[in-house]
Amino acid sequence: MIGDRGGLGGVAQGMYGPHNPAETYVPHELGEHLVDLGEIEMNYATAGDPSSPSLLLIPGQTESWWGYEAVLPRLADHFQVFAVDLRGQGRSTRTPGRYTLDLMGGDLVRFIDLVIGRPTIVSGLSSGGLLTAWLSAYAEPGQVLAAHYEDPPLFSSQVQPAIGPGIRQAIGPIFHLWSTFLGDQWSIGAWDAMRDGAAAHLPEHLRFIPVPPEPPQNMKEYDPEWGRAFWSGTVAASCDHDRLLRSVRVRSVLLTHHMRTVADGTGFLLGAMTDQQAQRVRDLLAAAGVTVDYRSFPDVGHAMHGERPDLFVDTVLDWVESIER
Amino acid sequence: MIGDRGGLGGVAQGMYGPHNPAETYVPHELGEHLVDLGEIEMNYATAGDPSSPSLLLIPGQTESWWGYEAVLPRLADHFQVFAVDLRGQGRSTRTPGRYTLDLMGGDLVRFIDLVIGRPTIVSGLSSGGLLTAWLSAYAEPGQVLAAHYEDPPLFSSQVQPAIGPGIRQAIGPIFHLWSTFLGDQWSIGAWDAMRDGAAAHLPEHLRFIPVPPEPPQNMKEYDPEWGRAFWSGTVAASCDHDRLLRSVRVRSVLLTHHMRTVADGTGFLLGAMTDQQAQRVRDLLAAAGVTVDYRSFPDVGHAMHGERPDLFVDTVLDWVESIER
Repeated sequence: MIGDRGGLGGVAQGMYGPHNPAETYVPHELGEHLVDLGEIEMNYATAGDPSSPSLLLIPGQTESWWGYEAVLPRLADHFQVFAVDLRGQGRSTRTPGRYTLDLMGGDLVRFIDLVIGRPTIVSGLSSGGLLTAWLSAYAEPGQVLAAHYEDPPLFSSQVQPAIGPGIRQAIGPIFHLWSTFLGDQWSIGAWDAMRDGAAAHLPEHLRFIPVPPEPPQNMKEYDPEWGRAFWSGTVAASCDHDRLLRSVRVRSVLLTHHMRTVADGTGFLLGAMTDQQAQRVRDLLAAAGVTVDYRSFPDVGHAMHGERPDLFVDTVLDWVESIER
Repeated sequence: MIGDRGGLGGVAQGMYGPHNPAETYVPHELGEHLVDLGEIEMNYATAGDPSSPSLLLIPGQTESWWGYEAVLPRLADHFQVFAVDLRGQGRSTRTPGRYTLDLMGGDLVRFIDLVIGRPTIVSGLSSGGLLTAWLSAYAEPGQVLAAHYEDPPLFSSQVQPAIGPGIRQAIGPIFHLWSTFLGDQWSIGAWDAMRDGAAAHLPEHLRFIPVPPEPPQNMKEYDPEWGRAFWSGTVAASCDHDRLLRSVRVRSVLLTHHMRTVADGTGFLLGAMTDQQAQRVRDLLAAAGVTVDYRSFPDVGHAMHGERPDLFVDTVLDWVESIER
């Protein structure tokens, strides 16, 4: 049926996604809610007291809201927390051809307006960290109080970055692998062929990343078109990171920078940013008048909030206290 | 100065634009207002009684809000009217690298929310007609009551349209001419060289369009990067028109289709849509459950509201009465 917002407008629907919830989702302790934002329905969970300051949590690529489950109990003692599924992830709407930072950022502007309803602190991991940067520059006036960029791939997730390695020299070939074998909206779904073909498809520095026998839960909830959008560059085609960082208006940013290694012989990056790229982020933010709290965690993996929940909460609380002083 | 939202982040500023108002603008009878939408400041004029239904008017490419001056007096008897300058036009902010339908649509979502503050009828010409289509599909729930697409270049302004001629086979080479000789943000400004070079630059079917000796007022107020965004396709890279039309949620659309000719030997289009393209628009909207009032005006130029103000007002009023019945 065409014209059906829940459907895909004539595009074949794959094995996983909101049209097939029994195969795709698992139950969670915390209740989930769907809000109609216009183009999409956004799924989210919330915890904490409405009288506390609000905190919006934005997961990384392939991560659903429940990636924050380990940190929610402690955060809820201090904040009214909202953890969302972005378009193309979890129980939120799939939007073929429409995965860009600008559209995802626009969704969050509407979410803050319609659901949170007041100024909020934001924290996002990886792609979600790009979106906290987007919100800190381009949200409606007054929506964002302060922003935590958790290990964001600034510059390194672009096809033509202003500085340092780009998506092809970082994690990009993994996204290309997923996109190629799984297809937009899981329309191909050739998981076994992907396992068999990964070594031939990937450059040497990424071959160590294992492809498990079955799709893990977070991947079932992921639209592989996300990967295509990053690999091809459409996700940021009209959102250059250099310009984005020059445009930040929020006054306080926490930038956490996690594990990263740059291969000596090739310059390939394993991690979200090189030290040079992180330094450029800091310089551009400082030039825009932003107070940047930069914290380096070279021994912590990409998703601190999942791997080191207490360290994540301690870090966020310490930062929030420092900006309230 | 970097980080200055009003500036261009280190990019050279050209001869015209908001940084140089004395050279760029002329006074108007109606007062103008600037609203801060976050990324941009949007300029607009308003007329009519707040107790009347609201009507948002969205100009076409190269047109500022005052392109509606001829229709405002009569419209203001029936509506509270808001006529805007889109990003990159008139007194609104220039946004290098960030001219997309999705971003312009997002600006209008915020404008409706923050300025109009209630559900509204929308009418837009040409690119503004694409944006009324965008709003009718992707705005926040309840923002748009009904939409008038005034001679919109649906399909024909894409680089890879689902049906019929695309931007290169229509008006695109004119946009390319402007972009090439005038430069993003008027950074080149070689008007005389453009006059001299137009014949060599343009395909035969567009050579009849005169380049006047001096930039007309509306062109001074235009950022030629708009033209580059249409010529290169970035403006709609993540907003395919076929998918857009399948996603329309507003129940009533007025589609006015003005002068168009298709060259026998080549298929080149002079006009906004071929009859086949307009038929496809109607079919897709009907399949989405939209009531389409299609009115053909083959003897009326592209901007009916400028050239035939009374016909425009009569047509809009007749349509609005028909949907209120």
